[in-house]
Amino acid sequence: MSEEYFPSIDKIEYEGPETDNHLAFRYYDESKEIAGKTMKEHFRFAIAYWHSFCNENSDPFGVGTRTFPWDKSSDPVDNAKFRLDAAFEFFTKLGTPYYCFHDRDLAPEGVTIHDSEKNLIDLVSKAKEYQGETGVKLLWGTANLFSHPRYMNGAATNPDFEVVCHAAAQVKAALDATVELDGENYVFWGGREGYMKLLNTQMKREQDHLGEFLRSARDYGRKIGFEGNFLIEPKPMEPTKQQYDFDSATVIGFLREQDLLDDFKLNIEANHATLASHSFAHDLAVAAERGLLGSIDANRGDAQNGWDTDYFPTDLYDATEAMVVVLENGGIAPGGFNFDAKIRRNSTDLEDLFHAHIGGMDTFARGLIIADKIMNDSDFKKIRYGRYSSFDDGNGKSFEEGNLSLEELRTFAIEAGEPKMTSGKQELLENIVNRYI
Amino acid sequence: MSEEYFPSIDKIEYEGPETDNHLAFRYYDESKEIAGKTMKEHFRFAIAYWHSFCNENSDPFGVGTRTFPWDKSSDPVDNAKFRLDAAFEFFTKLGTPYYCFHDRDLAPEGVTIHDSEKNLIDLVSKAKEYQGETGVKLLWGTANLFSHPRYMNGAATNPDFEVVCHAAAQVKAALDATVELDGENYVFWGGREGYMKLLNTQMKREQDHLGEFLRSARDYGRKIGFEGNFLIEPKPMEPTKQQYDFDSATVIGFLREQDLLDDFKLNIEANHATLASHSFAHDLAVAAERGLLGSIDANRGDAQNGWDTDYFPTDLYDATEAMVVVLENGGIAPGGFNFDAKIRRNSTDLEDLFHAHIGGMDTFARGLIIADKIMNDSDFKKIRYGRYSSFDDGNGKSFEEGNLSLEELRTFAIEAGEPKMTSGKQELLENIVNRYI
Amino acid sequence: MSEEYFPSIDKIEYEGPETDNHLAFRYYDESKEIAGKTMKEHFRFAIAYWHSFCNENSDPFGVGTRTFPWDKSSDPVDNAKFRLDAAFEFFTKLGTPYYCFHDRDLAPEGVTIHDSEKNLIDLVSKAKEYQGETGVKLLWGTANLFSHPRYMNGAATNPDFEVVCHAAAQVKAALDATVELDGENYVFWGGREGYMKLLNTQMKREQDHLGEFLRSARDYGRKIGFEGNFLIEPKPMEPTKQQYDFDSATVIGFLREQDLLDDFKLNIEANHATLASHSFAHDLAVAAERGLLGSIDANRGDAQNGWDTDYFPTDLYDATEAMVVVLENGGIAPGGFNFDAKIRRNSTDLEDLFHAHIGGMDTFARGLIIADKIMNDSDFKKIRYGRYSSFDDGNGKSFEEGNLSLEELRTFAIEAGEPKMTSGKQELLENIVNRYI
Amino acid sequence: MSEEYFPSIDKIEYEGPETDNHLAFRYYDESKEIAGKTMKEHFRFAIAYWHSFCNENSDPFGVGTRTFPWDKSSDPVDNAKFRLDAAFEFFTKLGTPYYCFHDRDLAPEGVTIHDSEKNLIDLVSKAKEYQGETGVKLLWGTANLFSHPRYMNGAATNPDFEVVCHAAAQVKAALDATVELDGENYVFWGGREGYMKLLNTQMKREQDHLGEFLRSARDYGRKIGFEGNFLIEPKPMEPTKQQYDFDSATVIGFLREQDLLDDFKLNIEANHATLASHSFAHDLAVAAERGLLGSIDANRGDAQNGWDTDYFPTDLYDATEAMVVVLENGGIAPGGFNFDAKIRRNSTDLEDLFHAHIGGMDTFARGLIIADKIMNDSDFKKIRYGRYSSFDDGNGKSFEEGNLSLEELRTFAIEAGEPKMTSGKQELLENIVNRYI
Ligand SMILES: [Co+2]
Ligand SMILES: [Co+2]
Ligand SMILES: [Co+2]
Ligand SMILES: [Co+2]
Ligand SMILES: [Co+2]
Ligand SMILES: [Co+2]
Ligand SMILES: [Co+2]
Ligand SMILES: [Co+2]
Repeated sequence: MSEEYFPSIDKIEYEGPETDNHLAFRYYDESKEIAGKTMKEHFRFAIAYWHSFCNENSDPFGVGTRTFPWDKSSDPVDNAKFRLDAAFEFFTKLGTPYYCFHDRDLAPEGVTIHDSEKNLIDLVSKAKEYQGETGVKLLWGTANLFSHPRYMNGAATNPDFEVVCHAAAQVKAALDATVELDGENYVFWGGREGYMKLLNTQMKREQDHLGEFLRSARDYGRKIGFEGNFLIEPKPMEPTKQQYDFDSATVIGFLREQDLLDDFKLNIEANHATLASHSFAHDLAVAAERGLLGSIDANRGDAQNGWDTDYFPTDLYDATEAMVVVLENGGIAPGGFNFDAKIRRNSTDLEDLFHAHIGGMDTFARGLIIADKIMNDSDFKKIRYGRYSSFDDGNGKSFEEGNLSLEELRTFAIEAGEPKMTSGKQELLENIVNRYI
Repeated sequence: MSEEYFPSIDKIEYEGPETDNHLAFRYYDESKEIAGKTMKEHFRFAIAYWHSFCNENSDPFGVGTRTFPWDKSSDPVDNAKFRLDAAFEFFTKLGTPYYCFHDRDLAPEGVTIHDSEKNLIDLVSKAKEYQGETGVKLLWGTANLFSHPRYMNGAATNPDFEVVCHAAAQVKAALDATVELDGENYVFWGGREGYMKLLNTQMKREQDHLGEFLRSARDYGRKIGFEGNFLIEPKPMEPTKQQYDFDSATVIGFLREQDLLDDFKLNIEANHATLASHSFAHDLAVAAERGLLGSIDANRGDAQNGWDTDYFPTDLYDATEAMVVVLENGGIAPGGFNFDAKIRRNSTDLEDLFHAHIGGMDTFARGLIIADKIMNDSDFKKIRYGRYSSFDDGNGKSFEEGNLSLEELRTFAIEAGEPKMTSGKQELLENIVNRYI
Repeated sequence: MSEEYFPSIDKIEYEGPETDNHLAFRYYDESKEIAGKTMKEHFRFAIAYWHSFCNENSDPFGVGTRTFPWDKSSDPVDNAKFRLDAAFEFFTKLGTPYYCFHDRDLAPEGVTIHDSEKNLIDLVSKAKEYQGETGVKLLWGTANLFSHPRYMNGAATNPDFEVVCHAAAQVKAALDATVELDGENYVFWGGREGYMKLLNTQMKREQDHLGEFLRSARDYGRKIGFEGNFLIEPKPMEPTKQQYDFDSATVIGFLREQDLLDDFKLNIEANHATLASHSFAHDLAVAAERGLLGSIDANRGDAQNGWDTDYFPTDLYDATEAMVVVLENGGIAPGGFNFDAKIRRNSTDLEDLFHAHIGGMDTFARGLIIADKIMNDSDFKKIRYGRYSSFDDGNGKSFEEGNLSLEELRTFAIEAGEPKMTSGKQELLENIVNRYI
Repeated sequence: MSEEYFPSIDKIEYEGPETDNHLAFRYYDESKEIAGKTMKEHFRFAIAYWHSFCNENSDPFGVGTRTFPWDKSSDPVDNAKFRLDAAFEFFTKLGTPYYCFHDRDLAPEGVTIHDSEKNLIDLVSKAKEYQGETGVKLLWGTANLFSHPRYMNGAATNPDFEVVCHAAAQVKAALDATVELDGENYVFWGGREGYMKLLNTQMKREQDHLGEFLRSARDYGRKIGFEGNFLIEPKPMEPTKQQYDFDSATVIGFLREQDLLDDFKLNIEANHATLASHSFAHDLAVAAERGLLGSIDANRGDAQNGWDTDYFPTDLYDATEAMVVVLENGGIAPGGFNFDAKIRRNSTDLEDLFHAHIGGMDTFARGLIIADKIMNDSDFKKIRYGRYSSFDDGNGKSFEEGNLSLEELRTFAIEAGEPKMTSGKQELLENIVNRYI
């Protein structure tokens, strides 16, 4: 690299829980094995290009507070290249094996579609070199179909067919880029796929357009050799009043309705789950239990604020509950844990971006250790699975297999008499979790 | 009837908007025709037996404030009969054509299943007589699978198979009752079908049990001649932390997953929709656009309170938006508008129950009139449907029909150049709505 | 004016409820008298300079969609002057008697404090001319202490004293501008006066700084001849996690603690009240009942979205309830109704800004008419005030006057026996409101 | 005691973090010293009589699931005595030094005020004996002014003066009981002091009644020798739509308005703070920084549910943040930590009540240990207090002392030029917290 953008920071190393070094890992030890895999394999951590390198931290009430040393040219394509230098410096200093991007993060939009495509191709070429040199890989690519004014009424669900076509042009180029960079997944987040006002909206017609759009993208992706998962990232609202991909259950219902379950899985973001009135673990479990947990956007919402705060994840309860789901799921690969999180607008020191990621990686590393202990050292499995033992054989099993009529069930009820009361043991379970934190 | 329970109240009549009589309808004129049907046919209003005749209005911080003149015996079955007298007096004085009940509203639970069944049969017999005499009909029946302690961990989704059997016994009897009374629908509200703690719960397994339970109930219902719709009523939470039937989209996804779409539709409650972070109209539209709007629980939540307040519906915006969806749906039959609403704990005058229902019926009557005007007299349809004209023919139509590839869409984008900006006209639409209110 | 910015729009006239003209008032008839005052006198409507002329409608997920014809120069001060032309064209075409601004709306920040002050003075001079020509007046001025990065940790409550000084410099200049333009009020909205993280914050110390800052501003204002009210605008959160001016009750407590009640009142924004879990009317009433209702930011939140949507106000219930409070308060003067509201990001037609304001003005005009009828033609006053008649004389009055001991109260209870139950008549009241809507 | 109600449970002992015994403390070691005090002295843990011994765990959708072995007589006063036996058995087995009660928890309401008073006196006499024998003390008493139908429109704020008198009679007796039992505090929670509908409510008049009521209670308490704190417990809503004691800031403003600050402090409940859109620590800090933190109701809300779940406190983040506030406050005495928390409706095993309390006590014990380390071993104090160093001397100090005018502040701003950007270090702080958890 021609210039060092984080000159005061060395490679972040694992130093263990007792270190006083704020720029070291206390729990994330990439080669440590837990439950049969190294931590690196478990998490497949990725850096979100947008928040870390493009987001100047403006908010609706103020301009950005970050100044980017890589914005040193008057040519946006040059700056995009400097940004890429900075990004790979950051990836390698932090030791994360993956990154994720939107097309417009990597390369600026041009005046025409051809210009935009050319810009992207240029940057992809340079990124490919960096990937080769550093071993850092692309977890997923995506197209930004929400920032440009043309998408103000939706992208794939825009009432104007021409806008849908522009969205398609962007997705095509983003798929080309993802394939060129050996991206392991491809994500759709429908920030504008929803409505501002129900009264002017034909919801189902728009959703059918989205289905058709996704099928055409899927077909194109498969045609050019993309073998990874397509992922949909649910979010209930913001920027639109109501988004179509509200939560895991809604997206799964949509995929089933549109016959897309063979190619699509879900990318669950913690803060989106909580905005939808679910816990992070809930939305993970809804997807995982159906074999549809594709990847994770690891961040955190604010229990008192009703918008997407995208905090870095530091809550050990969230991380532990998530890791229980992930371990039961047999892992997250070929997805990963992408830090779709941003430092606060007043976190203006160079090292704050490192503190944030170190904290996030350590939190999940610790969540993994705790979840593994809960699952293997405690009564957790007995409480969780033992509760259902009446369905493991006999009439209960027969019911599960669909062999009993309502009348037969009634007869069993009469024979059994009043069932005994069985405690859910919630308080004990909460104590068990705290024991291992 | 042996005794009059609302002696100071005469039959409620339509007197028009200018009446000073608080015990008259200002807008609900059952024989008035709007959009090709009488108001009576549009709404098929129903009274909820539980809130109006069983609920003494206790809350988590205080005992009930209503004293029921029909609770005059020490024998609960006798009181149930007096309650039925009062209910039919109320139905006929108010002029609502339908009512709805839970098994335990109509008749008390006995010591054994046989006792409970006998109690229900007794009361059903008496209700049948009253239906014959008065012409009042049963919109839907249901089984209360949430109040008894045995259901504390779920009914159909209880980890204990014996509890599932008890739930089945209740549903069988409630289906028998519904068929006997010519009920036009049968409802499932899964108040305990969810979890208190995710960590002790196998969600998907429980949901599969629910699917199996519903299939067995469906089969039994069809076997005994029930030809109406089975309905699921979504609710996101309360009493459980998280319920499986979160909202319309979730329930539709579940029905599709469980292959129940041929027999099941949705019963949408306004307050449940808002608890799930949706507008009432949104959850109606999600169902209606898929042909799955079965019936409506007409009530209202509180924008500042996070629990199921079950206010009577008095908001003209909610009613108008709902009626737009219902009119576009071609009506609500064979469902209806059931007032799943309760008077406040401090509404202790006899006539308050009448004020409440009159207000609810007038609100929807007026919502119908307003919706009809918006749809026929204003630019509403142009704004709502004209927006999508680019899909009505040409390439847009071809896209809708699934004939275009991603590359073709991109080519059209290049040819079209930057699309023009099209206003969503939200502020104008809101003015149009206010014009007709 | 050298150029017309809204050439297709003529002066908006009152045409009555039945007009088909979307660019006319249906209810706002400025000279119509209600309850002893003209509508113009009741409302003193004001336009918010920022949303209408400065806000390009970007959001956290996309850039702006509005292009301003007055941004035609490369010199921001020139553009500020063109913007002023457009603003006064808009005010006069709409017929609103007032406007409101932040210092930075009117004139751009310069490199130094002196530059910024000079820019503001230039624009104020031009605004003063326009005010003279058009008769449009300044309802209130304020300083933008939240957009600049220097305020990221707070303005008056910043932990760095130098930032407090910069905030003071801005307030001084904004007060000078307000006085020069005969502004009738001066507002403080503390967008950054709160915290992002409690753990790094000394709340009370910061709040004492805010108190001191306000006292120095008050003293300076009085010194230069400002005789109007100082106003604080509560908001619970956003952009900070938690703001100090949470709601009416919090601000009133703060003013009392800081001994500022003689000079400060409140500017209540509807959307801020609802973000704080209150109805708009609640926060108005809390202030009004203490003689502290200073002015109103008339807008509307979204019952399903947890951020400051700043919709234009179109809900007749909100408007009616607000007008009941305002009428009981004897009016809003010397405050007014300022439309702190923005058109949606996809409302990109020139006339949308007019539709929005027309809708807002008509909504409140109608709310006034309805409130007046409820208060004078219905049982409202009897229900509202008659409930408290036991305190109007006798022992109840003696209690209110502070003359009874706990023991005496107990003795009365024993003498009285169990009190009778008195219905709150909530459902009837709701019917009464709907009668007049 | 004549009968043992928890026969299978022995005294709960401290066994340390590694114990496998679910019925032992892992962190709460009552004699362990931290920061100069034993844990027993730090927390002064109290048991809430109502949830633990009176609440059968019904909810709005189902009857209770707990059956109380002490409800063995047909005479409610006898049962109240058996309940007292059970309570003191529980207190001593758990080793909590305090308990809290409502009048109606301890003794049932009678037909007349005299009867009720007599019942209470009987039970108080027996409780006093138990206190003497066991050393368990009364942290606070209170009167239940919310369950009886007569309070449906409010107690002290009821529009009917006779109801206010009944509330006074109850408070008098409850104060007598508290003094007789050497209660160290007396609490007011105004569950019905608020409104269901603003339109029928004179808020300020009701609040003035409340002020007068509290003054008369204060005077009576002081007259009979009560020297402890009177405490108000804020809650924003539920059971009323909106309660007057919304949050800490609102209550403090009210106390100041009513001139009650010399005798009243606050009892902060975690779940009430979160229902009011604050963190637990926020509402603690608002009170503590003004010397008004009186006592704590230690429980936990649900981030996804909008009602008062009253979970047992098990979140180490909440506990740690709370203990930072408490340590900075110099402790909680003469208040304490009262577990106003209930086991879940499906926690029906005898030992669940023990698990719940053990978990709560251990959580706070651990929070204390963590908070102490954060405050003494980390950069926390430097980050928290060092931020404000510009106010510790020089012009900043002069500003804090009220000696600088707005013009002087402006002059300093010009001299200082643009302030440097100072990071809030939020991410680092969050890592520091996790380091010590
Ligand atoms: Co997000
Ligand atoms: Co994301
Ligand atoms: Co409900
Ligand atoms: Co319902
Ligand atoms: Co405002
Ligand atoms: Co706002
Ligand atoms: Co409490
Ligand atoms: Co509580």
